Amino acid sequence: MEDMTWPEVARAAEAGLPAVVAIGSTEQHGPHLPLATDCILPVGVALETAKRYPLVVAPPLRFGMRSRALSGGGESFPGTLSLRAGTLIAVLQEVLCGLARTGFDRLCVQNWHFENAGVLWEACDLAAAEHPAIKILLVEDPMPDFSDAELEELFPGGFGGWDVEHASTMETALMYAVRPDLVRVDRIVDDAARRHPRWDVLPAPDEFVPASGVLAQPSMATPEIGARFLQATADRLEEALTTEFGPPGAKP
Amino acid sequence: MEDMTWPEVARAAEAGLPAVVAIGSTEQHGPHLPLATDCILPVGVALETAKRYPLVVAPPLRFGMRSRALSGGGESFPGTLSLRAGTLIAVLQEVLCGLARTGFDRLCVQNWHFENAGVLWEACDLAAAEHPAIKILLVEDPMPDFSDAELEELFPGGFGGWDVEHASTMETALMYAVRPDLVRVDRIVDDAARRHPRWDVLPAPDEFVPASGVLAQPSMATPEIGARFLQATADRLEEALTTEFGPPGAKP
Amino acid sequence: MEDMTWPEVARAAEAGLPAVVAIGSTEQHGPHLPLATDCILPVGVALETAKRYPLVVAPPLRFGMRSRALSGGGESFPGTLSLRAGTLIAVLQEVLCGLARTGFDRLCVQNWHFENAGVLWEACDLAAAEHPAIKILLVEDPMPDFSDAELEELFPGGFGGWDVEHASTMETALMYAVRPDLVRVDRIVDDAARRHPRWDVLPAPDEFVPASGVLAQPSMATPEIGARFLQATADRLEEALTTEFGPPGAKP
Amino acid sequence: MEDMTWPEVARAAEAGLPAVVAIGSTEQHGPHLPLATDCILPVGVALETAKRYPLVVAPPLRFGMRSRALSGGGESFPGTLSLRAGTLIAVLQEVLCGLARTGFDRLCVQNWHFENAGVLWEACDLAAAEHPAIKILLVEDPMPDFSDAELEELFPGGFGGWDVEHASTMETALMYAVRPDLVRVDRIVDDAARRHPRWDVLPAPDEFVPASGVLAQPSMATPEIGARFLQATADRLEEALTTEFGPPGAKP
Amino acid sequence: MEDMTWPEVARAAEAGLPAVVAIGSTEQHGPHLPLATDCILPVGVALETAKRYPLVVAPPLRFGMRSRALSGGGESFPGTLSLRAGTLIAVLQEVLCGLARTGFDRLCVQNWHFENAGVLWEACDLAAAEHPAIKILLVEDPMPDFSDAELEELFPGGFGGWDVEHASTMETALMYAVRPDLVRVDRIVDDAARRHPRWDVLPAPDEFVPASGVLAQPSMATPEIGARFLQATADRLEEALTTEFGPPGAKP
Amino acid sequence: MEDMTWPEVARAAEAGLPAVVAIGSTEQHGPHLPLATDCILPVGVALETAKRYPLVVAPPLRFGMRSRALSGGGESFPGTLSLRAGTLIAVLQEVLCGLARTGFDRLCVQNWHFENAGVLWEACDLAAAEHPAIKILLVEDPMPDFSDAELEELFPGGFGGWDVEHASTMETALMYAVRPDLVRVDRIVDDAARRHPRWDVLPAPDEFVPASGVLAQPSMATPEIGARFLQATADRLEEALTTEFGPPGAKP
Repeated sequence: MEDMTWPEVARAAEAGLPAVVAIGSTEQHGPHLPLATDCILPVGVALETAKRYPLVVAPPLRFGMRSRALSGGGESFPGTLSLRAGTLIAVLQEVLCGLARTGFDRLCVQNWHFENAGVLWEACDLAAAEHPAIKILLVEDPMPDFSDAELEELFPGGFGGWDVEHASTMETALMYAVRPDLVRVDRIVDDAARRHPRWDVLPAPDEFVPASGVLAQPSMATPEIGARFLQATADRLEEALTTEFGPPGAKP
Repeated sequence: MEDMTWPEVARAAEAGLPAVVAIGSTEQHGPHLPLATDCILPVGVALETAKRYPLVVAPPLRFGMRSRALSGGGESFPGTLSLRAGTLIAVLQEVLCGLARTGFDRLCVQNWHFENAGVLWEACDLAAAEHPAIKILLVEDPMPDFSDAELEELFPGGFGGWDVEHASTMETALMYAVRPDLVRVDRIVDDAARRHPRWDVLPAPDEFVPASGVLAQPSMATPEIGARFLQATADRLEEALTTEFGPPGAKP
Repeated sequence: MEDMTWPEVARAAEAGLPAVVAIGSTEQHGPHLPLATDCILPVGVALETAKRYPLVVAPPLRFGMRSRALSGGGESFPGTLSLRAGTLIAVLQEVLCGLARTGFDRLCVQNWHFENAGVLWEACDLAAAEHPAIKILLVEDPMPDFSDAELEELFPGGFGGWDVEHASTMETALMYAVRPDLVRVDRIVDDAARRHPRWDVLPAPDEFVPASGVLAQPSMATPEIGARFLQATADRLEEALTTEFGPPGAKP
Repeated sequence: MEDMTWPEVARAAEAGLPAVVAIGSTEQHGPHLPLATDCILPVGVALETAKRYPLVVAPPLRFGMRSRALSGGGESFPGTLSLRAGTLIAVLQEVLCGLARTGFDRLCVQNWHFENAGVLWEACDLAAAEHPAIKILLVEDPMPDFSDAELEELFPGGFGGWDVEHASTMETALMYAVRPDLVRVDRIVDDAARRHPRWDVLPAPDEFVPASGVLAQPSMATPEIGARFLQATADRLEEALTTEFGPPGAKP
Repeated sequence: MEDMTWPEVARAAEAGLPAVVAIGSTEQHGPHLPLATDCILPVGVALETAKRYPLVVAPPLRFGMRSRALSGGGESFPGTLSLRAGTLIAVLQEVLCGLARTGFDRLCVQNWHFENAGVLWEACDLAAAEHPAIKILLVEDPMPDFSDAELEELFPGGFGGWDVEHASTMETALMYAVRPDLVRVDRIVDDAARRHPRWDVLPAPDEFVPASGVLAQPSMATPEIGARFLQATADRLEEALTTEFGPPGAKP
Repeated sequence: MEDMTWPEVARAAEAGLPAVVAIGSTEQHGPHLPLATDCILPVGVALETAKRYPLVVAPPLRFGMRSRALSGGGESFPGTLSLRAGTLIAVLQEVLCGLARTGFDRLCVQNWHFENAGVLWEACDLAAAEHPAIKILLVEDPMPDFSDAELEELFPGGFGGWDVEHASTMETALMYAVRPDLVRVDRIVDDAARRHPRWDVLPAPDEFVPASGVLAQPSMATPEIGARFLQATADRLEEALTTEFGPPGAKP
């Protein structure tokens, strides 16, 4: 949508297409992936989905909630640029309201940055209160349910949980599928926090922060795994859109 | 702590005890559990833990984030009283800073309301920035990891995920253990949303909202299961406190 | 209301009962009264009133405005946990709006913490603007007008003004009536600020802060005086409810 | 100070003079007094005080908290222009911090608008936290304690409480003393709310609002009474300044 | 309007007169002009305009955005008292909404302080959204377009741009026309920042700040030039009012 | 910087390179230019400048202040997605603080969206207060001063002011130079508001809004003019960087 003109956008809204707002971050992704990884990937998934289900990719939100050590390495890494909760909620609310004013009555918020998950609903709720005629699909977690067998194939080094899949197998593989030119293959390292409990501590203890910013095993990523992830996440987004908004082209 | 005097609190802080802030909600919990369930339970768990690990139970936060249909029935139920994200963050930040001024340098935030999870870290981060000498343990999810065998025993009707354990087996069982007088046994009904995807939709479709406000099977709860949950959650809180703050009585 | 279920609350709202929101504080109350005194007392008064005028006691607000030295000892006492004005206004506004959504169209805000008085009206005004059909009774000062003769009886040690009746004769006496188990009788001391002008100074000079946190003469309190205060404050709340909402059971 | 140049202000600050910030309102004051009455009077009192105790009159705050029916007629009167609590707190905080940056280390906040009283302390507290070296004298109520005999003389029509002395005897008399040209003598009417309880109701019932905006008896005001009020309020401000900041010219 | 009573204001609003809100600052204006210059001048212009086009001068906003070194000398000067953007927006929005409630449906916001220009529109936009029936004329820059010949006459010392006309020829001349008693003629000095690029730098480098606070040549000001400026700016305001609101007395 | 990894960014910061934050908008740019024009152009200019003066292009801010009819067509156009002032200030402040934490001590804020100009200084001021060691160069207006002769050459159709150069000659020409593939040459139309005073009116009158969203004459744009604009704006940014931060590679 950033590259579209206003009459093009107006026609898309009139045609009843949903607008998909990807929410990412500007955050360290190890020595081998770019800071914009969390934006590039959901946009890539949305574009892949668009091949099957007509939609408009709205301008993604490139700044997300503060990075936490156990799921993104934390704010101590250079290049991580984050927003406070109130700011992110305001930005998303105002962007959703702008899309509603534009004429889109089906909005999809697709999150990729783990730390964002808890606050997006509030922004959607505020926008829905202002624009009662719109319907918002909120996808806080972009991953489908994989079977144990699938997880084994997708994570040859073992699956340690989605929270540590930051700059690791899944994200590296997906970048092979979406923007392979941005993967610094020669700098891939595997790493992990020395300690990773299911609670959190502030300020983050040193042993929660891996030196490289990588939380698991990006070395296990392959283009094939990336292609599978791309199809699986696009399948899921398509399923969500179809379920909530009807088949492509359905009138609201 | 609400029933303590200020000199008693001062002594506890000087002794290096941690202060535990429970964060709940005022939210419908079906026809058989009280609105304050999400406050009563974490306070009960904290008091149980206090038998083994000396701590101070700070005044709990009785209002939480807005209820979402798929994890709490939603805001359409009478009696559900909720805060906006910015308000909850401000309340928690100010309470944590007040505890720090009081002299507590080990704070534990223990959450029980699913919807709160995403915003508590921000309040802790803001308080930690104001009081660099304090250490905050944030327990967003009070449940330990149960094995499949354990889950089978604890959920005789089958385990459908923690998000639907609202006003259901686990919470009803725990109330048997903590405040059995508040369980209206004769009004227990099992219920469920007619549709429960892993994404969310706003405004909440009718089929996301069960008529009773119950999301699964409270009829399966027993006092025995409640006693097991109480020990398991108190074990976990004790483990977190011991891991992060050292053994009881350790000087910071 | 915290112990009620949602269908019970819904029935109360349908029956036209008023909901009473007590606003207190978590604040030092000398060496003999608990931090929650300012919540326990207005809830006690509301429950006493409920014997004569059917009403629902909504969850009280347990955190209030910052304590000022001349009326509450000030923020330097351990255990005093307070909110900023904007936060308190937001909490009260959101709770009132939640009660309105629940179906209550008669709300009563009953304050007990001196420092809160100036900001409650704003929250009520904002809630009234959002819900034009509700009527809010705001009782900033819970005390009736006593005659000089009555004051002499109620304050055997002399009446020095309501602002210094913090942790003193009136509050101690009322605690005897409402929660005698929480009065540490053996630790009662009389005290006073060494200087107490009718203006204020920031930062608070040392001579504004009594060492004990007691502002006058709790030693003069007796259960009999407490019983009289309880009746007098319940009488007044009943009078206000009757005057503004009509006799008990009147349809709005 | 508004008419001073910056070098003049700089010299006054260096000389250790206090800066007095009057807080008023833009609010109906009946058919005979101007909207700015609540600003004109405290500035008049400060200027009278300045004859005895050297001080700088900082630019007054001309907008105050929303008018309430029982103490100012309410927001339904044309010409009443008010701020929300958060806005007033921010304005006062920023003005106080500006005065501190200018070099004033003794600040006096002098309130005249009844509804402001509850929120000024917060702004002072925030400014004091930012500038630990300043000392703020907060005079929320500008009136001294009068004896019963004095009240009888000052209020020939009887004294009904300071809250109804809006646009009535005291304010009209003081305007005779300070700006007699702004009193529309021929339009003075006595009036009162038909009902005036000690609690408040929102939205304001009609019987709380007098048609004229006058809350008591301005017809009783005389220039002589005005002169007495001017001396009495200037005496009190002088006493507060001397008590808290030392005698005129004392080095901080 | 500050000196008017509420019935007078009500009649003016009913007659369809526009209300003009001047926005100034409290800011250093060199050693020869008062801090309130930015308020005195737009009020003077509005009063001059009122001789030809009936209007009401609403209470001016006496605090504006922070002063920037290159257009006002900056915040380092004693006596400069400024607001944050959010505060100024809130004040203006609430004042405009108050005027709309009063009955004015034609509002004019007339700015004089350079730094305010960028944020006034937002406040107007928010007020217009709340009161769809009002029409707001926003004059961010009070100066008409002068021809080169006119500029030569008005600025005998040469015209260096409106941004440096702070406390210089134009403002000093206008003060001669509006409040000559407030010009300290004997203290007029010409001055300039040693460096004045068209971008800005923060923190402000020393060479951006002239020692006197004067940005150009006040010595060139004369009463005659002041009279011309007064007519020119009043002409322009009249033109704007006539163009947007119709001829004087036209019904909205 | 979005495509860089964190170690690359860390090295750039250590080398003392400035980080340039472009601030644009998502706003209609007529039928021939994309919504992201205001982001694409300042990034293009920064990249051109980087050929001569080593710098890091930080992630641009893609949402700006609300569009005003007279300078951007206004908010009524589909596809225009804007932020409130408070939100934009918060985003920019947090991004600048994030860059400071990353280690950049020379920051440059380069604005392209007319409506942003007034609020960027506040965000820079807030960030500078938090990080006293950084130096911020704020370029609110990216255009150099052109001579009349140059303006004649650059605007063959006549120069009507920079405010109407929205989606017109300058922006279209620059897009030819930076991203020619995004110019829909066949849809270029010249247009203008029917009325364009130097003041503003809210709500925007119809005659302020051109049907196409074009404010002047994009048909006059050529790739040659675009190349000249690119050099001129890059020259100016280089000049600003050199003047304020010293020659390329200078140690701070």
